[in-house]
Amino acid sequence: MTASDAWLTQLTTPLLLIDERKLNRNVRRLQQRMAALGCALRPHLKTLRSLPAAERVIANPQAPITVSTLAEAEAFVHAGYTDVLYAVGITPLKLTRIANLIQQGAKVHILLDTLAQATAVYHYSQQHQVDFSVFIEIDCDDHRGGLSPEDPALIALANYLVAYPVNRHGPAITGLMTHAGGSYDTDSVSAIKQVAEAECQAVRTAATKLAAVGIEPLMLSVGSTPTAHFVDDLTGITEVRAGVYTTFDLVMQQLGVCALDDIAMSVVTAVIGYNPEKNWLLIDAGWMALSRDLGATRNAQEPSYGLVCDIAGQPLAADQPIVVNGVNQEHGVIALPAAIRCEQFDIGQLLRILPNHACATAAMHTHYHVITETQAHEVWPRILGW
Amino acid sequence: MTASDAWLTQLTTPLLLIDERKLNRNVRRLQQRMAALGCALRPHLKTLRSLPAAERVIANPQAPITVSTLAEAEAFVHAGYTDVLYAVGITPLKLTRIANLIQQGAKVHILLDTLAQATAVYHYSQQHQVDFSVFIEIDCDDHRGGLSPEDPALIALANYLVAYPVNRHGPAITGLMTHAGGSYDTDSVSAIKQVAEAECQAVRTAATKLAAVGIEPLMLSVGSTPTAHFVDDLTGITEVRAGVYTTFDLVMQQLGVCALDDIAMSVVTAVIGYNPEKNWLLIDAGWMALSRDLGATRNAQEPSYGLVCDIAGQPLAADQPIVVNGVNQEHGVIALPAAIRCEQFDIGQLLRILPNHACATAAMHTHYHVITETQAHEVWPRILGW
Repeated sequence: MTASDAWLTQLTTPLLLIDERKLNRNVRRLQQRMAALGCALRPHLKTLRSLPAAERVIANPQAPITVSTLAEAEAFVHAGYTDVLYAVGITPLKLTRIANLIQQGAKVHILLDTLAQATAVYHYSQQHQVDFSVFIEIDCDDHRGGLSPEDPALIALANYLVAYPVNRHGPAITGLMTHAGGSYDTDSVSAIKQVAEAECQAVRTAATKLAAVGIEPLMLSVGSTPTAHFVDDLTGITEVRAGVYTTFDLVMQQLGVCALDDIAMSVVTAVIGYNPEKNWLLIDAGWMALSRDLGATRNAQEPSYGLVCDIAGQPLAADQPIVVNGVNQEHGVIALPAAIRCEQFDIGQLLRILPNHACATAAMHTHYHVITETQAHEVWPRILGW
Repeated sequence: MTASDAWLTQLTTPLLLIDERKLNRNVRRLQQRMAALGCALRPHLKTLRSLPAAERVIANPQAPITVSTLAEAEAFVHAGYTDVLYAVGITPLKLTRIANLIQQGAKVHILLDTLAQATAVYHYSQQHQVDFSVFIEIDCDDHRGGLSPEDPALIALANYLVAYPVNRHGPAITGLMTHAGGSYDTDSVSAIKQVAEAECQAVRTAATKLAAVGIEPLMLSVGSTPTAHFVDDLTGITEVRAGVYTTFDLVMQQLGVCALDDIAMSVVTAVIGYNPEKNWLLIDAGWMALSRDLGATRNAQEPSYGLVCDIAGQPLAADQPIVVNGVNQEHGVIALPAAIRCEQFDIGQLLRILPNHACATAAMHTHYHVITETQAHEVWPRILGW
């Protein structure tokens, strides 16, 4: 894009901007990688939560998708998507909304890892004559939930699901799924590759354990954006999930998963003032527009809230990163290096901030402004709430 | 409230809950304080950004209010509010939306602290025959923007506004305003009192400087929730602004501005799993529901994302705070102390999380569930976007 896009300079700041050309390029990259590895992709749509964005990510609405909320599941099913994994541990109160979607003909897979959940799903299924499709969550890196492949509780849970089926017309267990959240804490590509291998190995081992007691889950689902981009061997794996790869962000760039130029999301903001003594630039993007996510600078001495670029998307200085150093609700503070004086910027001048964590920044916006492949302007609404 | 409120236990989690009884109590507290000090209050409505909430905060829509976005200004003016301070430095592109509100008969005050802003407002005013009401931002603690009272640029700006008036029918300068953001970084009530005195003194000094050159601004506006609750002497001050006092939060409790029991906002969440080895409880409130705001634990060794309470709002353990230790998008992790086993909690069991920073947590929700004074259920929508 260029600074002369008239529509962009007439909108009220702050706003979230998506570069569709980069988004499409990122989408193709992982599609081609998965095609080469011979594995299906089940994109996680939680980053943008947007129907027009999903159309760029999935050509065919029959293809599998992942979501993080029932609000997304409902919006995507209503829009014609038919194969949805709700990738957060199920609770009894959420079953009614899931059942409604199933009764509309969609496959909506639920996730669980406790007998209490399996029992609740069984009773609901019996009472309401609904068939549920169940994934068991497997833990591959001890970072959150799921059952370790070696945990006897896995066999007990699987046996329970066979003895008390929640699906009269399908498999007792649709699949096993795991997520290597630990891939975000790596510091090299070789470390990501190790995590990727451990992620696959966790569900393979769990499947072997279940096979030994006569239970063969249909699907093995793994994934995170870092592991999806560096995994080499997907033998036995049915599908890979990834989410933030569509837009990428500074966390992914710092992990080495993408280049700065691949980041398809930025927040457009206007200069609203200065602190000449401190050589600070004040902008109208605070945490409301950027989020409070510190990304990879979480443990840094000098945390930051995003990388400052000019309106064309180029970093302000080639030799050193200039970042948003502080945020209040509707104010951002950029502490400039001595070589660049704050007064060089005009009041109202537009800047673009690359986000630390695209999911968190997108979550602060109800809609996204998009510069399309043909340099036109579109607005994509976000699916809100739970 | 009690755990037996049937409506509450039937809603999809996570959700934001407001306790109207506490909110009303917090509102009365500051109203009574300001009445005793003989000063007007201009509540900042940025915390909840909600018309029904504003009705609890301001009895009379002619009374002054503060907002942080044009979206709020428009929503409140359309609802009948007539005296609105937009408390973020103005940019030229935002003048048209302000002018539209002024032409509807509302007083919408704008804020500036540079000649460039004054020039842009003057030209717009001349070109479109609109009268603007201007506050000059004064810096009282060097934490963000505004002009120091001693800065010669203040006199130059004021003289410019007199020479190039933006208001043909009113004062060249409506008022001076300052915000002691530094009050959030204090560690004692006596420190807050010092900050409060400095906040008042900054605008008094600035007014004296302007009076010496023959300019008498009508209003002196100060405020932050901590300073508003501890300021003793408001001599010469026209109005006090405060925002988060309506609900309070853990930051305010830790500063000593409120008690834990005064916090009128919580996030209701359900248990979705365990990590028995680590004695972790997993909940369905991640950063999407809680925000990424670390509040007063920002620099702590063990940052947290909120205080865990039972569904009745009582902290889980009396002797030690149990907090949300980690968050992903839709997952929260609570590391329990050894005395409380994670398996003691049922899948689906509801908990309430008190927020670090109420403004940031409210910003993650499109609407709030409210338990009213009469224990009934209301839903208050939030004004979204910019």
